[in-house]
Amino acid sequence: MSKFASRMKSMEKSAAVIRNLFGAMNDPEVISFGGGAIARECLPVETIREITQDVLQRETRGIEALSYGPVMGINDLREVTISDLIEPKGVRTKVDNTMILAGGLEAMNLMCQVFIDPGDVILVESPTFVHSVEIFDMFQARCIAVDTDENGMNMDDLEEKIKKYNPKMIYLIPTFQNPTGRTLSLDRRKKAVVLASQYDVVILEDDPYRDIRYSGVELPPLKSFDTTGHVVMANSFSKIFSPGSRLGYLVAEEPIISKLADAKSATNSHTAILPQIICAEFFKRGHFPEHHKRLCAIHKERRDTMLKSIDRFFPEGTRRTDPEGGLFTWAELPAGFNTTELLVEATRNPEVKVAYVAGEGFFTEGNGKGNNCMRLSFGAVPPDKIQMGMEKLGKLFCQHERKYSWTVGS
Amino acid sequence: MSKFASRMKSMEKSAAVIRNLFGAMNDPEVISFGGGAIARECLPVETIREITQDVLQRETRGIEALSYGPVMGINDLREVTISDLIEPKGVRTKVDNTMILAGGLEAMNLMCQVFIDPGDVILVESPTFVHSVEIFDMFQARCIAVDTDENGMNMDDLEEKIKKYNPKMIYLIPTFQNPTGRTLSLDRRKKAVVLASQYDVVILEDDPYRDIRYSGVELPPLKSFDTTGHVVMANSFSKIFSPGSRLGYLVAEEPIISKLADAKSATNSHTAILPQIICAEFFKRGHFPEHHKRLCAIHKERRDTMLKSIDRFFPEGTRRTDPEGGLFTWAELPAGFNTTELLVEATRNPEVKVAYVAGEGFFTEGNGKGNNCMRLSFGAVPPDKIQMGMEKLGKLFCQHERKYSWTVGS
Repeated sequence: MSKFASRMKSMEKSAAVIRNLFGAMNDPEVISFGGGAIARECLPVETIREITQDVLQRETRGIEALSYGPVMGINDLREVTISDLIEPKGVRTKVDNTMILAGGLEAMNLMCQVFIDPGDVILVESPTFVHSVEIFDMFQARCIAVDTDENGMNMDDLEEKIKKYNPKMIYLIPTFQNPTGRTLSLDRRKKAVVLASQYDVVILEDDPYRDIRYSGVELPPLKSFDTTGHVVMANSFSKIFSPGSRLGYLVAEEPIISKLADAKSATNSHTAILPQIICAEFFKRGHFPEHHKRLCAIHKERRDTMLKSIDRFFPEGTRRTDPEGGLFTWAELPAGFNTTELLVEATRNPEVKVAYVAGEGFFTEGNGKGNNCMRLSFGAVPPDKIQMGMEKLGKLFCQHERKYSWTVGS
Repeated sequence: MSKFASRMKSMEKSAAVIRNLFGAMNDPEVISFGGGAIARECLPVETIREITQDVLQRETRGIEALSYGPVMGINDLREVTISDLIEPKGVRTKVDNTMILAGGLEAMNLMCQVFIDPGDVILVESPTFVHSVEIFDMFQARCIAVDTDENGMNMDDLEEKIKKYNPKMIYLIPTFQNPTGRTLSLDRRKKAVVLASQYDVVILEDDPYRDIRYSGVELPPLKSFDTTGHVVMANSFSKIFSPGSRLGYLVAEEPIISKLADAKSATNSHTAILPQIICAEFFKRGHFPEHHKRLCAIHKERRDTMLKSIDRFFPEGTRRTDPEGGLFTWAELPAGFNTTELLVEATRNPEVKVAYVAGEGFFTEGNGKGNNCMRLSFGAVPPDKIQMGMEKLGKLFCQHERKYSWTVGS
């Protein structure tokens, strides 16, 4: 019974990271900066109750909600996604090119089904989202890291690595990146699309955080510069509506979109219908603008508290990113700290009981890169608890700093 | 931009069958015996409205419904699935071995992720479910057909082909099989499990129709005879609750279940939560027994009408199966008929406008096998329309029979 497919071996490491991540989220005594969830205060429970009540009272809508539906998703949701979320960003598309997904992450799975044979290269940011890497590993892709700085992926290094590795795909999280919170600059967005077209490589633009911006100037998606069909734009309703509904969407041109539809059919036929109807009605009935305003206000306060707490409580020499939106900050402790080892103490020590995601797992390079780094998510934790948790974490780190200095000095 | 993964090539044929199948379902003027949906009269819209209303009124449940949840599915649904649907069939299991899926079809996708490398052999029934074949093709499995008769898969042929092909998996739909409606006999169920254990091959027992039985004696699942962990039992809520909810479940032992959970995490994180809660409450609040009784009564009438209509309207010499439950009959027209060609006329001719699924697509052997056969689904069509559609279809076939006889005689 050990005759598992070879892909099970290649995904072992990243799958373990994901399992740990979800594990820590389940301990109610732990203050978790681990998962990438939004504030529970922002889940529109009451609005959804009203919508559902209404929808299921109408004969045809009720039957539709419980019946088989189209592989690409219901028209209503595709239409309102285009009018409210896609076209306002400068991307022109049609219902036939817009597919509803069972959560944003499904885009990575389906894109791998369509493009990735074992051994194919995917160029990723360094660091990049570990859950996507789990998917790339399952498809036995070879992830090659491209250098990044405060403006996102370095375009010279991207071009060099396109030439060197002949990749099948470039995976980018351009806005408030996971895990760093950084944003790809406008120039680089344009340049990436030019390179994709020039070297005939597809870009998977994974942009689930773009709509929760607290400061700075909004930037157009890479897809808005795409004239040759080389960009597939993927997004999620998890951050702007509800993660439990498992809804996402993508925009792609022919022939890619047809292949994605076949892969979707062979994955789960189609996305659950009731969540699609509820989500469509949420936008159609005009609930989004007010909800969006509140979402940004609540998360801005959390971001501000998180950033201040890092500056106040973390050891001297700690560096951090300065995200203009999204849910993540990336902190780099001084050299010598090992965030993977410290996480065990942070979650188990009864004086601490705080979780984060250790940095190492976000680097596909391996070789210990990022082992003094961590991703800190501020979305799901109220400001007072952010401050409390960060103070405890800071104390733990400072204690270790003293030990560390002593070891080095001795 | 033609650098698609090689699996896109291997799934081309079966994907086209699936696309056509869904296509015909969307023409409101066509009486469709194509899709495998249940009667819309059996969708518990009102009960689900009440449950949803109640669930979303409770603070914690409402938040749970909209938040990220466990990869394996919510405990409530796993528990009630075990108590109401699994243990009554003689299968003993635990919550840790029971996973909630995004529809029954997801079982095939995840099992392939876990077991199938390109070129690996899956033994399937001849004929077998074409949508599963689409998935097997996407994973570049080599499907080898095993002979079947009125009692399901032939066990001598199964053993011979296990020896000959060293398969990774045996795919069985034991009860009211798709497409034939036939049921694997008790002896063969036991024998299949013995063979799986003896030759160390995993059985994927796909059993979504088992709970809608109209006559005959209920048989225990293969999983109930499994003492060595070689059987993975998969099922769906699509036929007994609602297809649009995209819910299914599977039962598997370690280490398979852990691998399946990793594959699920890398596919869509987890199944949508609100449908899971609604479904769990549907069972917990005791709605199922009454619903189940009605489900069987309504579909029994449709089956009876369908069988009588075949006997009455189809050409002499037509053979058909005699299903004791489920949603399908399999009809074999006399040699010379080509159901693939006739389907074009059946759906387009304004005098007919009836759809079925042509038999050919269900045979992985190719070579024109089944080209005088068809799958007729009676679930989604009311009795009067079954009779009307079958009469039209019968007339079309009889007209062609005359043409055919004339050609042969001339």
